[in-house]
Amino acid sequence: MTVTDGGGLSRRGLLGLVGTGVGAGVLGLGVGIGTDRAVQAHAGGSSGASASYPFFGGHQSGIVTAAQDRLHFASFDVADGVTRTELVELLKDWSYAASRLTAGLDVSPTGATGGSLLAPPDDTGEATGLPAAGLTVTIGFGPTLFTTADGTDRFGLASKRPPALVDLPHFSGDQLVAAASGGDLCVQACSDDPQVAVHAIRNLSRIAFGRASLRWSQLGFGRTSSTTRGQTTPRNLFGFKDGTANVKAEDVAAVDDGVWATASDGAAWMDGGSYLVARKIRMTIETWDHASLSEQQTVVGRDKGEGAPLSGGTEFTAPDFAVAASTGGGPAIAPDSHVALAHPRNNDGATLLRRGYNFVDGNDELGRLNAGLFFIAFNRDPRRQYVPIQQALSGNDRMNEYVKHVGSAIYAVPPGASRDGWVGETLFG
Amino acid sequence: MTVTDGGGLSRRGLLGLVGTGVGAGVLGLGVGIGTDRAVQAHAGGSSGASASYPFFGGHQSGIVTAAQDRLHFASFDVADGVTRTELVELLKDWSYAASRLTAGLDVSPTGATGGSLLAPPDDTGEATGLPAAGLTVTIGFGPTLFTTADGTDRFGLASKRPPALVDLPHFSGDQLVAAASGGDLCVQACSDDPQVAVHAIRNLSRIAFGRASLRWSQLGFGRTSSTTRGQTTPRNLFGFKDGTANVKAEDVAAVDDGVWATASDGAAWMDGGSYLVARKIRMTIETWDHASLSEQQTVVGRDKGEGAPLSGGTEFTAPDFAVAASTGGGPAIAPDSHVALAHPRNNDGATLLRRGYNFVDGNDELGRLNAGLFFIAFNRDPRRQYVPIQQALSGNDRMNEYVKHVGSAIYAVPPGASRDGWVGETLFG
Repeated sequence: MTVTDGGGLSRRGLLGLVGTGVGAGVLGLGVGIGTDRAVQAHAGGSSGASASYPFFGGHQSGIVTAAQDRLHFASFDVADGVTRTELVELLKDWSYAASRLTAGLDVSPTGATGGSLLAPPDDTGEATGLPAAGLTVTIGFGPTLFTTADGTDRFGLASKRPPALVDLPHFSGDQLVAAASGGDLCVQACSDDPQVAVHAIRNLSRIAFGRASLRWSQLGFGRTSSTTRGQTTPRNLFGFKDGTANVKAEDVAAVDDGVWATASDGAAWMDGGSYLVARKIRMTIETWDHASLSEQQTVVGRDKGEGAPLSGGTEFTAPDFAVAASTGGGPAIAPDSHVALAHPRNNDGATLLRRGYNFVDGNDELGRLNAGLFFIAFNRDPRRQYVPIQQALSGNDRMNEYVKHVGSAIYAVPPGASRDGWVGETLFG
Repeated sequence: MTVTDGGGLSRRGLLGLVGTGVGAGVLGLGVGIGTDRAVQAHAGGSSGASASYPFFGGHQSGIVTAAQDRLHFASFDVADGVTRTELVELLKDWSYAASRLTAGLDVSPTGATGGSLLAPPDDTGEATGLPAAGLTVTIGFGPTLFTTADGTDRFGLASKRPPALVDLPHFSGDQLVAAASGGDLCVQACSDDPQVAVHAIRNLSRIAFGRASLRWSQLGFGRTSSTTRGQTTPRNLFGFKDGTANVKAEDVAAVDDGVWATASDGAAWMDGGSYLVARKIRMTIETWDHASLSEQQTVVGRDKGEGAPLSGGTEFTAPDFAVAASTGGGPAIAPDSHVALAHPRNNDGATLLRRGYNFVDGNDELGRLNAGLFFIAFNRDPRRQYVPIQQALSGNDRMNEYVKHVGSAIYAVPPGASRDGWVGETLFG
């Protein structure tokens, strides 16, 4: 991959790094020798993963990319008074920095230690010595960037809002918390080393200083989906394999049909992009843990060990909803099981490319772990994919007894940036 | 390593797994084939680390063990009305389960899927298919297990309270939150795979159902210390190398002098044990990020890139507090720098074996990351090690402008369990 040569952080971006009240000023930045993390020795982190993914390209990385093990997801609100020009500058700054971070570099050539002693370093430094570790940075635009609730067209984008970027409806059982929902912009940072993912969100947040601020953010410690055939299927905190039937990168036809938006879908600037739905799903694991193995398997529609559908076979055998239960009395896979309700066959063929992560946010006052699944799905058109699937699930899923949706957000994820370009160029350019 | 053969979960422990109101009852448990995670294929997680550490032995693992990359730490309170006999049973159950978990096994032979279909599985299953991943489970006893604030001797242990297990004093600047402080028992689960660490805490918490409950818990995503010479030095969220001068396992004399309690230290049952101090330290990283590189280095007393003391040399060069600054005007290492104040030379030779972790718990309403360092230190006698060192730091450390201690706890960590024995046998036995 190539890092943009002609770019660099904007003056505003550099000011964000310096902050206010610091004597040195921006002139101190850009001075000194470069810091190239990638050529330094690996000095920490478990994975030693040397994978790196391109930032520039037709699609953003972090969608069909083999799901990395760790996540830091951040939702941002653009500050009041920021102009369209300043928003574009922020996206250029983020793209420049992300193109470096995903290559295992600091956010700027002077980086963590190469600048003036009298100025704050450009890069916060906690990833110094670590490789790219498969980092991807995926940027999206929330509905409120286009049209606020009161109809204000903040950035002259109202006419560009894609019809597929719907406001998600209220789903049965939703118990959404504002502090974990919505947002003007999102950044999904995935890496095999959590320190690298945290470093990315922290530094992009810092670059945004004064222009956009964190609305909410979420760490995920373990992936719950595979997005390529070469990956083993991980387990969620219900103890079941998750993502067995996920859309895989190798299924080009399925990816084209279900993930990538096209110019003819209603928003030409989204050609090659996708729509990201994020849902913070709290699992009431103590209740789940007291359910019998039979109940758990009936809820999921698969057996717990192998992950095979209850209609028989092995993990990757297609579920057969017509097979009767060996015990009699109905189908082997309950019609209100999670597998049955989520299956494309029961949703007009609709699929999702899932990229979720397990989370634990401490515990509540009753000693119950605040645990669950941070669900992320990419889809070409939420109106015919995520929304109807979730309507079926929220109304009838046996799993609802054990889950509570507490966070919700949707973003239009534009196509990848052209070489030396920036994410959003097709929208603003 | 060997897993206890004669043991097994107590009836109370099994009841904890089944919960209340479930028809199957405990008879369903123990039926079926065993589930041996270790012989299953590795099915997720990044590290692929196949390391495993013994649970039984003279010392508990997880102290001088090479610091694993991820942490789930949990503090428990024993439930009202629990008897001494029941507390012993809990410790036996935990020890049995931990001896299996650290070997890459489920918590019981029937495990996640080998039990009755009509009963809840013994094991929650999210680590099925994962290796031991270097898991250690380290158990400790808080001061309140021995003597409550009102002087009640809950378990007949008051006379056994080690003199070194002091109530930590209030340190200057402490802003402690009850919900992140104290506790009757602790379990430190470290692993190179966070899913394995979370699985351990979740399952031990489940086994404790009705006997002890989570008071607080903390995930840490990146280690901030090395405890063996073979490990590279990681970085904390200030972007600096941390733990360069840490006590290392190979320094046998230093470990014996500074980590392991002996029979003559005042509590014979602690022979081979140690004292764990946990401090949740919130870093005000936005303020730090606006400080100049010079200020940051002066605060720490080391340079940011290499980690060398400001008196010169490279990372592992001993700091020389007599060397004058090249700019004149005083010593190169400020006397109120973190390195100077924490150095053994300035603390009557006192050392700490640190085992801390970086954390990020989302962000606050102002968009600032709730980030910091979950500090863990093992020491032989906190009265002459942690307490005076922290008194020096809390009073004078230049770093105090950028940190806030919000959680605090101390535990006596008994010696390791004898083969087929249990942690705490020297106290209760």
